[in-house]
Amino acid sequence: MEKIEHIGIAVKNLKTSNALFEKLLGTPSYKTEAVESEGVRTSFFKIGSNKIELLEAMGKESAIGKFVEKRGEGIHHIAFEVRDIWAEIKRLKKEGFTVLNDAPKKGADNKWVVFLHPKTVNGVLVELCQDVAVNPYKGDENGI
Amino acid sequence: MEKIEHIGIAVKNLKTSNALFEKLLGTPSYKTEAVESEGVRTSFFKIGSNKIELLEAMGKESAIGKFVEKRGEGIHHIAFEVRDIWAEIKRLKKEGFTVLNDAPKKGADNKWVVFLHPKTVNGVLVELCQDVAVNPYKGDENGI
Repeated sequence: MEKIEHIGIAVKNLKTSNALFEKLLGTPSYKTEAVESEGVRTSFFKIGSNKIELLEAMGKESAIGKFVEKRGEGIHHIAFEVRDIWAEIKRLKKEGFTVLNDAPKKGADNKWVVFLHPKTVNGVLVELCQDVAVNPYKGDENGI
Repeated sequence: MEKIEHIGIAVKNLKTSNALFEKLLGTPSYKTEAVESEGVRTSFFKIGSNKIELLEAMGKESAIGKFVEKRGEGIHHIAFEVRDIWAEIKRLKKEGFTVLNDAPKKGADNKWVVFLHPKTVNGVLVELCQDVAVNPYKGDENGI
């Protein structure tokens, strides 16, 4: 793991939360992006070498919609940047962590992402991510 | 806000969680420290320019003990490093955030810390922190 890439925060209303986090962090959101496959609208803030990602559900059936309904707004996940997402998936599976998707998928902010099941990480939803530009998808030859 | 200083994670058993996070992050805890005033034992991991802080309650009446009993293990707070914690307290109060303690107090890892009430930050418990060495306590002349 190279660094904390971002912290994901589930919110009910992206517009009002954007204004709130702009006040908190003293910097405006630099990007908003819809991730249709996840059913979320996202907004990103830079803070030092990390980011804060706000996540608003597009519908109640999305993972973020269910999270907010069950637990309310709040911190949803930690994303770690990795150098080789395929190698990390293999390593973490061997160490006993449950990887939620068998292969990396396209997430927000032009990243390959995978998630680890919170039950295997002390209740923490962990995302691993890697820039698509740095490591384009290699396909099945990775054998994961 | 300068950077994300650390992410605090509430755990039930520091020993087993230390082993788990060592596997996850690929690096061992570099420090454990008891913070008697908060009723917690802490353990720190470096990850890039950030830290992960594991928090184990010393008793059920501590904030971490209550958190784990109510919500289970998981992410507890985000801590941001600030340049002038007194100026930030003033600024954030003006912006409408509720600061949980009137003056900074000594936290783990030789920091002055204050917390913002999660109800004013979309359900996120936010800590502001600053190295004691960088900015020794100035007393009441700050008028906060």
